Amino acid sequence: MWMMRQAGRYLPEYRELRAEKGGFLDLVYDSEAAAEITLQPLKRFPELDAAILFSDILIVPFAIGQNLTFVTGEGPRLTPTLLKDDLDELTAYPARLDPIYDTVRKVKAALPPSMTLIGFAGSPWTVATYMVAGQGSRDQAEARRMAYSDPAKFGAIVERIEEVTLGYLSAQVKAGAEALQLFDSWSGSLSPAQFERWVIAPTARLVSELNKRHPTVPIIGFPKGAGGKLAAYARETRVNALGLDETVDPVWAAKELPEKLPIQGNLDPLALIAGGEPLEEAVRRTLDAFATRPHIFNLGHGILKDTPIAQVERLIALVKGDE
Amino acid sequence: MWMMRQAGRYLPEYRELRAEKGGFLDLVYDSEAAAEITLQPLKRFPELDAAILFSDILIVPFAIGQNLTFVTGEGPRLTPTLLKDDLDELTAYPARLDPIYDTVRKVKAALPPSMTLIGFAGSPWTVATYMVAGQGSRDQAEARRMAYSDPAKFGAIVERIEEVTLGYLSAQVKAGAEALQLFDSWSGSLSPAQFERWVIAPTARLVSELNKRHPTVPIIGFPKGAGGKLAAYARETRVNALGLDETVDPVWAAKELPEKLPIQGNLDPLALIAGGEPLEEAVRRTLDAFATRPHIFNLGHGILKDTPIAQVERLIALVKGDE
Repeated sequence: MWMMRQAGRYLPEYRELRAEKGGFLDLVYDSEAAAEITLQPLKRFPELDAAILFSDILIVPFAIGQNLTFVTGEGPRLTPTLLKDDLDELTAYPARLDPIYDTVRKVKAALPPSMTLIGFAGSPWTVATYMVAGQGSRDQAEARRMAYSDPAKFGAIVERIEEVTLGYLSAQVKAGAEALQLFDSWSGSLSPAQFERWVIAPTARLVSELNKRHPTVPIIGFPKGAGGKLAAYARETRVNALGLDETVDPVWAAKELPEKLPIQGNLDPLALIAGGEPLEEAVRRTLDAFATRPHIFNLGHGILKDTPIAQVERLIALVKGDE
Repeated sequence: MWMMRQAGRYLPEYRELRAEKGGFLDLVYDSEAAAEITLQPLKRFPELDAAILFSDILIVPFAIGQNLTFVTGEGPRLTPTLLKDDLDELTAYPARLDPIYDTVRKVKAALPPSMTLIGFAGSPWTVATYMVAGQGSRDQAEARRMAYSDPAKFGAIVERIEEVTLGYLSAQVKAGAEALQLFDSWSGSLSPAQFERWVIAPTARLVSELNKRHPTVPIIGFPKGAGGKLAAYARETRVNALGLDETVDPVWAAKELPEKLPIQGNLDPLALIAGGEPLEEAVRRTLDAFATRPHIFNLGHGILKDTPIAQVERLIALVKGDE
């Protein structure tokens, strides 16, 4: 059991450190602070089974040469966007990834051996949506349009991300990561043919190469919003575990997905805030559905910043009390 | 075959009428103009099989007593929101629905008998997300939170919408509508238990009552983003036809959904803009998947305003040439 965004704003100790140290990106690049933040939820909730590296999926575009800033209340900005500019006008700075490996090493050194250290990256499709538009967007319209209108250019962007991501994840493993998650936050907006081309194909190549290089390190794919395409994703990417978002019915998923595939997920973060009956019912539904296969309990999305600590304690008791 | 938002901004004759007559809501409330707009795509593309009423799903909150405005470039605004205010502080104005029935009557009188007139409304859940937040939102957070934190208040809102919608759709049938579509644009963000409670249950009650009152009028349910929950939606709501958004793989859907259920959809509106090979391939995939069951060809989402007319002509030739 772990929780997406478990090192984050719902924790008073995180808010304190952040107020002291400055912006989000400052924290990510201060490997001392990033390691401390990664470890905060494990200190508070020692029943959790894994640490997830405190970082951001947009470190990869930053290393490819875009400028990265976080605008308070509005989210990330990447410049120049790739709507007009081309990839080869960017100067790559691979050294921008180095502080992240320092964080991994520091966390690994401090983490009890019973806890797993999870590294991560964004999937090529999701990272490309940000690189093209320069920011998050409601339905990834810019990237989806470029994927149709200029598949050569869009394919080159995806390929470059894939190549950098492969090196990045591999280096995280060498620094101490014991499992890897691929966040595909925007996989939900694609038609089936585009999903096959831009989500499944690059993910399958990454999984195949990473499994070859690091056979003991499982890759968790998390294609948010994939809905009815989850089974195809699982079958064709050959991810070693599959993360489900909170909109997926676990009963349906248990029936639909390959029988022995480990599943991760998928409590509604709003049910965690609600507590009481809705929380207990949702936890029960997920635990029961995946009782007969390997199951990593998690939320279906990042924990929300106004989640009461007492509710998290209640959740852990519900899940761990069940074992 | 018809196209969602077929009476809209991609048509020069629509843009012309709109420039002349004023804002979107002025057009909806001018039943002369609304009828003309409804008929525009049928005049231009006489191969289409159906007209869809030119109107908006937020007419129902307007009739329930919220003020409705459309802010250019930002979308609709409803005031007061129901975040703080209660339903019983609103004064209902059922007469605000009357001009819509006038439009239906005018279209029906002018429409060739071979063409079907489709009326519509938003589903209670989707309409409630707007009534609570006062506007569209990225992930319907306000409504989803209220649904957990104050299910009594949220349930009362949904019930009122359901009641008004039942009368509204029934009156559309009496005015001449021959089929009805329930747009559930925001059904994709709900966890399975919340989906059952707020999407499936109210929809099932509406379908049951409308089918009882108007046994020859099919109800098309369109739960956008329902993904892996589509089969449960079809089975439990007993809609007479099911609309699929463009992210659903038709091959998967044909296998997963009840065998005799008529399917509507689901071309990616971006594939229509792209044209060429991607368009032909996507059309073929959809037509082939649903070849052995009743199939209403449509897009998976509204036609985009920059869609070239020539591409629409090409699409119609591809679909109708196949018959």
